Amino acid sequence: MNIDRIRAAAERLNGHVRRTPLLSSPFIDAIAGRRVLVKAECLQHTGSFKFRGGWSALSAMPDAQRQKGVIAYSSGNHAQGVANAARHFGVPSVILMPSDAPQIKIANTRALGAEVVLYDRATENRDAIGDALAADRGLTLVKPFDDPDVIAGQGTCGLEIAEQARELGIDRAEVLVCCGGGGFASGIALALAAEAPQMQVRTVEPDGFDDVKRSLASGRIERNAQSSGSICDAILTPAPSELTFGILKQYCGAGIAVSDAEALAAMKAAFDRLRVVIEPGGAAALAAAMFHRSEIAADTVIVTASGGNVDPSVFIRALQE
Amino acid sequence: MNIDRIRAAAERLNGHVRRTPLLSSPFIDAIAGRRVLVKAECLQHTGSFKFRGGWSALSAMPDAQRQKGVIAYSSGNHAQGVANAARHFGVPSVILMPSDAPQIKIANTRALGAEVVLYDRATENRDAIGDALAADRGLTLVKPFDDPDVIAGQGTCGLEIAEQARELGIDRAEVLVCCGGGGFASGIALALAAEAPQMQVRTVEPDGFDDVKRSLASGRIERNAQSSGSICDAILTPAPSELTFGILKQYCGAGIAVSDAEALAAMKAAFDRLRVVIEPGGAAALAAAMFHRSEIAADTVIVTASGGNVDPSVFIRALQE
Repeated sequence: MNIDRIRAAAERLNGHVRRTPLLSSPFIDAIAGRRVLVKAECLQHTGSFKFRGGWSALSAMPDAQRQKGVIAYSSGNHAQGVANAARHFGVPSVILMPSDAPQIKIANTRALGAEVVLYDRATENRDAIGDALAADRGLTLVKPFDDPDVIAGQGTCGLEIAEQARELGIDRAEVLVCCGGGGFASGIALALAAEAPQMQVRTVEPDGFDDVKRSLASGRIERNAQSSGSICDAILTPAPSELTFGILKQYCGAGIAVSDAEALAAMKAAFDRLRVVIEPGGAAALAAAMFHRSEIAADTVIVTASGGNVDPSVFIRALQE
Repeated sequence: MNIDRIRAAAERLNGHVRRTPLLSSPFIDAIAGRRVLVKAECLQHTGSFKFRGGWSALSAMPDAQRQKGVIAYSSGNHAQGVANAARHFGVPSVILMPSDAPQIKIANTRALGAEVVLYDRATENRDAIGDALAADRGLTLVKPFDDPDVIAGQGTCGLEIAEQARELGIDRAEVLVCCGGGGFASGIALALAAEAPQMQVRTVEPDGFDDVKRSLASGRIERNAQSSGSICDAILTPAPSELTFGILKQYCGAGIAVSDAEALAAMKAAFDRLRVVIEPGGAAALAAAMFHRSEIAADTVIVTASGGNVDPSVFIRALQE
């Protein structure tokens, strides 16, 4: 896994991916006590950076393999990223989703052309169903983060950050990245190590789901005790993989953890000051910049607003708090 | 008033203005029955295209005049555009605002460094107060639309639309522009006439405030009967000026009028599908594309999302309808 793989992904994504803007507001700078630039991946196709990884993975597959179709497990953003790429390449996609996933996400994934297979979290085994489907139809599994081509796709966002920061005359910054399994953070870290080595990635996770923060502190992979209980649904992953943690360990500073209340307040600030819609998990990095000032040293922070697929009821809660 | 003035404004704005993205969603295309590209000026500095006109006007002033300061009448987006430009140039700005303007807009305008002078709509005369202040302090009035340099600034958005459409291989389109006094629509129309002559601007107004639509139909300036009564507060102007109407008459197709309910539904679609925050008046053009299909002929429509300064209570109403 190296920078060449990210550059190759960028070539495959060229003309398809959106170069999302770096947004800012003097009001947010004042709260954060430093310059804050927000990489608005919520404006990416399918509403999150997962578009990049899905596209990268499918475009890297040998055509004969891709033609048989792909399968993914996801209740959210990765589902839409993979479904969208499959539609582009005209190949079948099967997405295994829990039957209690939000109706809007199920509907959107279907509308992107995927075959959605629902399973009961309580009584059915997702992996068994997926393995059977994959074997039966010759589908290729596209993992959400533990895959070099997926990481390479997410890393293309890091190439853009380096380029956009350079345009603004910025070469030093801490880059706060919303972190679940670490695919986004490790891709960005690899890209910045090559393109903007004076920038350092910091992972941001929800309180109680800070497996990467603890892993970075202990030097070995730590797992979360629970699997639910935060509104930051997009980044509640049990643990990083060997692949992502190996990269994170090499390049990242200490992790940061934020509360649900801080994520909601960051969503409100993004509404008021940036006029973008961010989902709770996608607001974690902005929340860290706004409410964890003392854990940050750089004069400039660049934060990812990783996704914007949020139910209206949750968004209303953010506006009312 | 001509294209050279817009190009000169673009040079003055270069390095300061955001080149806002053209967003799209297959879901919105499906509703509209054609390709829809959304020029997201809600992501502009100060949250609306008014940044452009304010900057253009102040940057065009002789320095000695500008140093004495500027004055503007506005309860909303123009206020913030002028205040922001004045802050950049380090000159005083006075904004006359009705005392019943939203507290958030008053606070934001003050936070941008302006001196906000409140007046009582019922008992005080805004123009008399403004004239006295301007004479007393030597301030220059920056009108919201009836000013060539303001129109030239708004027209820079048209240059971007032409350029971004060209990058996408599009040369024919109807360009739907949210319209109050016509500064934005006339600036864009002039820019497109020069840069993308196969594109045609169409103005979009709220039902009951369709003075430009009626003026275009009759060939002379028509006025609205009422001055309030729509949630599209940003575009409730009594009538176009001679200057803006002269340009609109020459270049625009028939006007379109949308209901408040349609504007709210467009705000919801922008939340769901584009992940941007649009205010009611800024959603009028998207509403026209979504709900007035039969009034549009082109295969591609480009719509302005003109601004995103909206109170949470109004946004919540859009999400709940």
